[in-house]
Amino acid sequence: MGITEQLIKFSTVEVPEEAAAMMRLSLLDWAACGIAGAGEADFASFRRAQMVEDGPAHVFGGDTLGAAAAALVNGTLSHALDYDDTHFAHIGHPSVAVLPCVMALAETLDIPLGDAVDAATIGVEASIIVGVWLGRAHYQIGYHQTATAGAFGATVAAARLLGLDKEQTRHALGLCASMASGVKAQFGTMAKPLNAGLGARTGVEAALWAQAGMTAAQDGLAGPLGFGETHHAEALEVKLPRKEWQISTISHKFHACCHGLHAMLEALSGAKIQADRIAGIKIRTHPRWMSVCNISAPATGLEVKFSYAHTAAMTLLGHATGVVENFSDEIAKDKTLIALRSKVEVVADETLSETQSQVTITLETGEVRRLRHDLLAPISLEQRSEKLRKKAIALLGHEPAEQLWNAVIGAELDAVTACFSAQ
Amino acid sequence: MGITEQLIKFSTVEVPEEAAAMMRLSLLDWAACGIAGAGEADFASFRRAQMVEDGPAHVFGGDTLGAAAAALVNGTLSHALDYDDTHFAHIGHPSVAVLPCVMALAETLDIPLGDAVDAATIGVEASIIVGVWLGRAHYQIGYHQTATAGAFGATVAAARLLGLDKEQTRHALGLCASMASGVKAQFGTMAKPLNAGLGARTGVEAALWAQAGMTAAQDGLAGPLGFGETHHAEALEVKLPRKEWQISTISHKFHACCHGLHAMLEALSGAKIQADRIAGIKIRTHPRWMSVCNISAPATGLEVKFSYAHTAAMTLLGHATGVVENFSDEIAKDKTLIALRSKVEVVADETLSETQSQVTITLETGEVRRLRHDLLAPISLEQRSEKLRKKAIALLGHEPAEQLWNAVIGAELDAVTACFSAQ
Repeated sequence: MGITEQLIKFSTVEVPEEAAAMMRLSLLDWAACGIAGAGEADFASFRRAQMVEDGPAHVFGGDTLGAAAAALVNGTLSHALDYDDTHFAHIGHPSVAVLPCVMALAETLDIPLGDAVDAATIGVEASIIVGVWLGRAHYQIGYHQTATAGAFGATVAAARLLGLDKEQTRHALGLCASMASGVKAQFGTMAKPLNAGLGARTGVEAALWAQAGMTAAQDGLAGPLGFGETHHAEALEVKLPRKEWQISTISHKFHACCHGLHAMLEALSGAKIQADRIAGIKIRTHPRWMSVCNISAPATGLEVKFSYAHTAAMTLLGHATGVVENFSDEIAKDKTLIALRSKVEVVADETLSETQSQVTITLETGEVRRLRHDLLAPISLEQRSEKLRKKAIALLGHEPAEQLWNAVIGAELDAVTACFSAQ
Repeated sequence: MGITEQLIKFSTVEVPEEAAAMMRLSLLDWAACGIAGAGEADFASFRRAQMVEDGPAHVFGGDTLGAAAAALVNGTLSHALDYDDTHFAHIGHPSVAVLPCVMALAETLDIPLGDAVDAATIGVEASIIVGVWLGRAHYQIGYHQTATAGAFGATVAAARLLGLDKEQTRHALGLCASMASGVKAQFGTMAKPLNAGLGARTGVEAALWAQAGMTAAQDGLAGPLGFGETHHAEALEVKLPRKEWQISTISHKFHACCHGLHAMLEALSGAKIQADRIAGIKIRTHPRWMSVCNISAPATGLEVKFSYAHTAAMTLLGHATGVVENFSDEIAKDKTLIALRSKVEVVADETLSETQSQVTITLETGEVRRLRHDLLAPISLEQRSEKLRKKAIALLGHEPAEQLWNAVIGAELDAVTACFSAQ
């Protein structure tokens, strides 16, 4: 069965409890990133520029908007810190495209939290599968899969929330094929998070417009002259739904820096080594990351976010890498950190996957310690929720974070969106 | 100079009178198509679905909206009949992406009609040049140049209206690179005109968001991982501004059917031959059109719009091809027309350009009449305006059409938008 037929069918399947539980954790994480993101001064003016209408959907940082505009703003703000979840097979950040669409539409339609979470789970799973279908060629040529695959996932979720029938869902996906967009030229600018917001808005609009009777290509994603043909899709074989839902292998960021550093940081996190006893540190990583996050002598806080050497030194010297504010220009100039980072050697190792890292620490005594981590290593929902609650506390403060957590595990959607204006 | 630098510079140039005069004719034509398009029952529900906000910008068929939403709706409705202007080098319909953006933004900002027309002229010219730069490869793989090149043109026009500085204009074009979209899979569905509306909205949003401080790629159109690289651009050498503005070679449709038929219909228009004296009709056309509009035995009004044989017969038998309603299912079944169309032979001829057609009519007496037309043949502004006023009358009725014409040649933008709710 073609991917479009599969997506149409998938929009109405029952959601396994485990998958929905994972989605609630991503909801916590996404909302915490969005509330914190709303505090970014750069985006204040963009946020304000959208406030030309009123509506029922809450926006991060306060105010309410119509569903489409709220999805746009919340998608953008929740990706502003680049601290939201990732799926490596999707090659993108699933929650920032799907959740803003789902939450804005669900609030508009007065849908219970449980149903919204189910729709988001479906949407995230769909976006991952579309990402896999588009493949690495789509990403390598320059498309931002978070936004493109994300828009299709958001559309599937919105179709479910609106209760579209099969033909309407087909048209919604067709409309999405003319709207899904976003290029990687934007990386490093404010338009990178905007891409996520545009993907979220596309989901809302494609579904609402299909409901309003708009027709579109029968197979806008995989058919002739459609999205796949034009956008360098590999059109890989995929199957939906799978016994093992892809959502179970979402990676959450526990460090406020480039995802390429995370396996190394996790490997080091349990090291308990006195920094002044270290003679040398050898980090092995997948070759892809060498051009992404291997700045050996970072000069700014932003550059520190892309430095194996400096973040390794931070971890070994007890500077929390989960705290956004720790990535400051001052920390880039810290002499103790600079001394330790100079002992780091980073090596590309093709035998490792993109989610794996190996660290070898040699002590002054000649003793050698070997550490390793794979971001895909199983982590129980309990462990994950504990780590995510800690992260939310670091982002929002204790009370707002716990209020958000209680809302996310509850039944009332309004209790979650009421937290959007926290801080 | 790269295309992006050229576009930034071009956004502030002075507009030659002749080019602006041409733009006013396209404004008349665009508004007439939009007002008539608002009467299409299929789009009523989509139109209504946008009415969730209020704003200063008039929408075809009545009501007002914010600039972005008005651009979306007016772009869609004005392309609904597929009767709006074309530029063959652009490979698209320039006015339906640029004018909805300009008119909605100008009305919002209270800008005089003359300045709005200048901005639209700049925008249309820019969209044509971007279309040329993207090239045929972009179109052939499946992109809808009306929407993609159109979005960049609309962005340039909007940047001019908002008085953006160079850096803001650069960011607006960068934002456009993540939003310009639209695939040809939509042809034959309601999403085809929607593509035009999306292009128009992109212009409004990209410029407003850049004004609000959003940053984007330095060269989102032609730079690394940007729109051109990802969207199969040929990146042809182009120069802006030219001495001869491209806008002077816009084609207006005087027949409510596929543009591939127009050269043939114009050739036949002066024929004055009694149909019952005809033994055979041979039509020569560019090979491209053979798969586009050569349905030899159309069964519906829609199919008639893509039939050399049937529309040739209509012209020779005095059925006006400039009247939308004449393309009915009844006319497809008309026995006299079917008898005459059976005498038509259509032949591909590589020596002709896409804008040329040759017709040879052999009479029962053996006498042969040869007719030919090239859509690029010069036509004076006076002749053009006369034909367009007639077309507007056929679309809207005499009084509304003349009221629109008087508004279009005047100074008050409000007088034009007041006509949007006519009919």
